[in-house]
Amino acid sequence: MRETMRIVECVPNFSEGRDKQRIERILDTVRNKEGFRIINVESDPDYNRTVLTLIGDPDALVEGLIPLVEICQKEIDLNHHTGQHPRMGAVDVIPFIPISGVTMKDCVFFANKLAQKVNSLFDIPVFLYAEAAQKDDRVALPNIRKGEFEGMKEKIKDPHWTPDFGKNEIHPTFGCVAIGAREFLVAFNIDCMTMDESIPKEISKAIRKSNGGFQYIQAGPATLEQRGHTQVTMNILDYKKNPMYRIFETVQMEAKRYHVNMPSCEIVGLIPKDALLRSLEYYHACDQTPYSKTMSLDDIVKEAHQYLKLRDFDKSKIVESALEG
Amino acid sequence: MRETMRIVECVPNFSEGRDKQRIERILDTVRNKEGFRIINVESDPDYNRTVLTLIGDPDALVEGLIPLVEICQKEIDLNHHTGQHPRMGAVDVIPFIPISGVTMKDCVFFANKLAQKVNSLFDIPVFLYAEAAQKDDRVALPNIRKGEFEGMKEKIKDPHWTPDFGKNEIHPTFGCVAIGAREFLVAFNIDCMTMDESIPKEISKAIRKSNGGFQYIQAGPATLEQRGHTQVTMNILDYKKNPMYRIFETVQMEAKRYHVNMPSCEIVGLIPKDALLRSLEYYHACDQTPYSKTMSLDDIVKEAHQYLKLRDFDKSKIVESALEG
Repeated sequence: MRETMRIVECVPNFSEGRDKQRIERILDTVRNKEGFRIINVESDPDYNRTVLTLIGDPDALVEGLIPLVEICQKEIDLNHHTGQHPRMGAVDVIPFIPISGVTMKDCVFFANKLAQKVNSLFDIPVFLYAEAAQKDDRVALPNIRKGEFEGMKEKIKDPHWTPDFGKNEIHPTFGCVAIGAREFLVAFNIDCMTMDESIPKEISKAIRKSNGGFQYIQAGPATLEQRGHTQVTMNILDYKKNPMYRIFETVQMEAKRYHVNMPSCEIVGLIPKDALLRSLEYYHACDQTPYSKTMSLDDIVKEAHQYLKLRDFDKSKIVESALEG
Repeated sequence: MRETMRIVECVPNFSEGRDKQRIERILDTVRNKEGFRIINVESDPDYNRTVLTLIGDPDALVEGLIPLVEICQKEIDLNHHTGQHPRMGAVDVIPFIPISGVTMKDCVFFANKLAQKVNSLFDIPVFLYAEAAQKDDRVALPNIRKGEFEGMKEKIKDPHWTPDFGKNEIHPTFGCVAIGAREFLVAFNIDCMTMDESIPKEISKAIRKSNGGFQYIQAGPATLEQRGHTQVTMNILDYKKNPMYRIFETVQMEAKRYHVNMPSCEIVGLIPKDALLRSLEYYHACDQTPYSKTMSLDDIVKEAHQYLKLRDFDKSKIVESALEG
């Protein structure tokens, strides 16, 4: 891969995480395409949501996402959708993330291009969010999505919530979608060995920005019925300023008062090598053991298991490995 | 002290810190009053400013501050005032701080009540600031005060800077005053057993708002030459949202990578009982030992030594004890 190649990551989240055949039909629309590839798919039955990670040429991605939106519109009716994760659309959110050869400004442009197409082709209202937001209170996705599919029917009629593309009316089955541009987001969940959701809720409040915690942390509680435990589920919006180890250790400290065991964590989607290295460096300094930024991906994976207790984690979840493959 | 007692702290800052006799005449107006008492006076000749801490019943304080404002108007002429500290009024700022039995909303009400009286009795323009601010750019006092006494003469004529009470003209000798409401500010320092200031500096960056840390933490490094160690020195602007134990434990966690010992902490000035209780509650929950909000001040002091490692700390540093004495 040449340095001058333009590479963007794109992470559409769609509201189906249970029906395997339907998920396959949706994924088929973005398989074997020229100019980009699927590097990760994560379907969660409790969330009833699939997070799809695509990487490649931005123009190819903008074109390639149209059939995905189209099939989700046909296959998913949010009037009959239930799941733990908040959602307002059949495709709920599509962020563009600069990886190489493109700027954040470029990604804002790609977001606008896709938003215009999605609205004009399918009559789906689009909100621009994060770095692409046109209004201050549309920067944070939860602000836009508050009320979810059910509440958006009325909310979108409020002139304050006129979509950036489209009219003041949600699509009757699809809902609406947020499209934007942002920095790489680490989706990090910490398992809590309890079914009492009030515990991860209180812990989330201790660490998240909205309650006075760390500036780049969005967090909340989740119950994983099938696994039989809860989680502190979070987005780290800037892993350089709020490194994983700091959040993980602060969460463990808060958990002490509840006497709840936290034996494992998970990364949803991908994570850049750099985000892991910044945390491994901390643990090596604590242990006074040698540390090298140039350790192999295999060693990084091993240490991520050991120190950050990552479960279900292998090399394929590291962005750099997906690009190598 | 009954639980139902309403207690407010009030910290008027007036623009005289050199002339001892004048300072005494000013302080005499708030001495031996029914319903409140002076708990601290700090005059700084370089600043040419005195910070006065009063505590008591909010209605008594609102009434009791009138003679203080009146004498400052008579005694202090800002046309002849010099000093290091920025100032715009003979009494420069008066914050109300909830201690017990009152809410922040109550304190905003007391601020408005005093503001109305000060303006109508003495024709002094009043700006409402902090939690009492009516405009976003009046929350931070330095925004309002920018230009100081000398610059306010013109600034106040700008319709954007019309005072919240009074006309677009400063008082010719007094200037103008900011009255508001804010949370209790806890000045909390954590000792680092090293003379390498880069260590508390890095730790400060991990926890302070300006680098992505906790929302209500201002922190930085300090070297105590005489004691022969450094500190992480901080202001906790909201001890309810950023309780001391959370900051203390996070700092300890960060310190592990530097292998520096942190055996003790200190509180500068006073601290409300509630700020200590909120942290002791955490440690009792961790230890699974009985905890009671109604423990005695002596027990609170003992436990503050034990859990928060407070040195040079006794009952006289707890706000409520100052009321009892």
